[in-house]
Amino acid sequence: MKLVLVRHGESEWNKLNLFTGWTDVDLSEKGHEEAKNAGKLLKEEGYDFDVCYTSYLKRAIHTLYHILDEMDRAWLPVNKSWKLNERHYGALQGLNKSETAEKYGEEQVKIWRRSFNIKPPALDADDERSALKQPMYRDVDKGLLPANESLETTIERVVLYFNEVIKPDMQEGKRVIIAAHGNSLRALVKYFDNISDEEIVGVNIPTGTPLVYEFDDDFKVIRSYYLGDQEALKAKMEAVANQGKKQQ
Amino acid sequence: MKLVLVRHGESEWNKLNLFTGWTDVDLSEKGHEEAKNAGKLLKEEGYDFDVCYTSYLKRAIHTLYHILDEMDRAWLPVNKSWKLNERHYGALQGLNKSETAEKYGEEQVKIWRRSFNIKPPALDADDERSALKQPMYRDVDKGLLPANESLETTIERVVLYFNEVIKPDMQEGKRVIIAAHGNSLRALVKYFDNISDEEIVGVNIPTGTPLVYEFDDDFKVIRSYYLGDQEALKAKMEAVANQGKKQQ
Repeated sequence: MKLVLVRHGESEWNKLNLFTGWTDVDLSEKGHEEAKNAGKLLKEEGYDFDVCYTSYLKRAIHTLYHILDEMDRAWLPVNKSWKLNERHYGALQGLNKSETAEKYGEEQVKIWRRSFNIKPPALDADDERSALKQPMYRDVDKGLLPANESLETTIERVVLYFNEVIKPDMQEGKRVIIAAHGNSLRALVKYFDNISDEEIVGVNIPTGTPLVYEFDDDFKVIRSYYLGDQEALKAKMEAVANQGKKQQ
Repeated sequence: MKLVLVRHGESEWNKLNLFTGWTDVDLSEKGHEEAKNAGKLLKEEGYDFDVCYTSYLKRAIHTLYHILDEMDRAWLPVNKSWKLNERHYGALQGLNKSETAEKYGEEQVKIWRRSFNIKPPALDADDERSALKQPMYRDVDKGLLPANESLETTIERVVLYFNEVIKPDMQEGKRVIIAAHGNSLRALVKYFDNISDEEIVGVNIPTGTPLVYEFDDDFKVIRSYYLGDQEALKAKMEAVANQGKKQQ
């Protein structure tokens, strides 16, 4: 069984270095290109799919659509779930990462971004940024919607969704692609590779780069690898790791 | 209960005046614009949806995606089915409409295009254009896939799909949009408005123009209307009606 994960390309807010979380910003011009390139690569390498998963957020949805267009697979079924959303960054959403570092200290920001189980400050229910105010969650049980998430709580909802919804598709022999976000994909990588709570915070998944997992029948990982140019990949991973540092 | 129907915008082959049918050609530049405008119009008029339906063909899928993007509703569930595809034009697919008129006679082309129950010549199963050769139908029961269709047989599959799949959604109170094709939408219009077999062949649905149906609880049509500028609409309908005539 093969599973392909793709992190969305650069968004308008990645570019501005803002905490995004559940804010529904679109891909940047570069992000659209990254997504198309991921699709070209998958096509060149002979990949095909039977069913697709993505989040409720347009930067992931558009990434998937570009991939499917490049592969001439626009007709494939696409399932969208908020459970594949990025980690909810609470009251930090919309703040500049460097400014936040100046205000709270680089160490605190690093803790929020890179600790396993510490949540950033919660968003108030009456904050315009709250999920409770967004039309896209109007059919979701309000008790389930977070006001902030740690990596730990993000992982819980993503892994639960994977096991309940996606894994059964794979066990039926369906070839699955998931287009999602840095932290929702980190959740799956931690789960598949049995990475410790300490180590996972240092794992950076590059944008727009198909990550392939191969499983045996007991769902044990046989191997995993990124598609594409391995040098370009390294540079991408380092760029993500540097995002949280205070700009000089 | 309200239902919104939208015919896809101009495709690359509409522009070239070729018989398209199940050929999976994309929207033209103008077609992309038409679709975006349909989305803007729906947004301006305060429309919203809970679930979306479209065909397997990218010109309809992309029309729907443009509409959802303009309405900031990319996250809505989208169901795709080949049963909402355009009428299958058999062996005429890929032929120029004017050339076909010269070869078979304008009258014969008119019969194929505008008769209710006469099918164009069938595509051979081993023809590269056959649905049996396209990856997108690989999971469909081969016995169901047509090699040519009359308007009558197109209507049968579309209305069956509507009654089995879409109508239950509406009866649950869901607001539905369908992005599809000239003949698959004609099928629904005939069914809703009880139009005779003779009359339906003369009904032209303009591209990229939201057509709203309002139903009572017994699914009787209360009223139906197109959104947008009514003069521009008239011109569009006449353009479609003239497509089948031999070019001078």
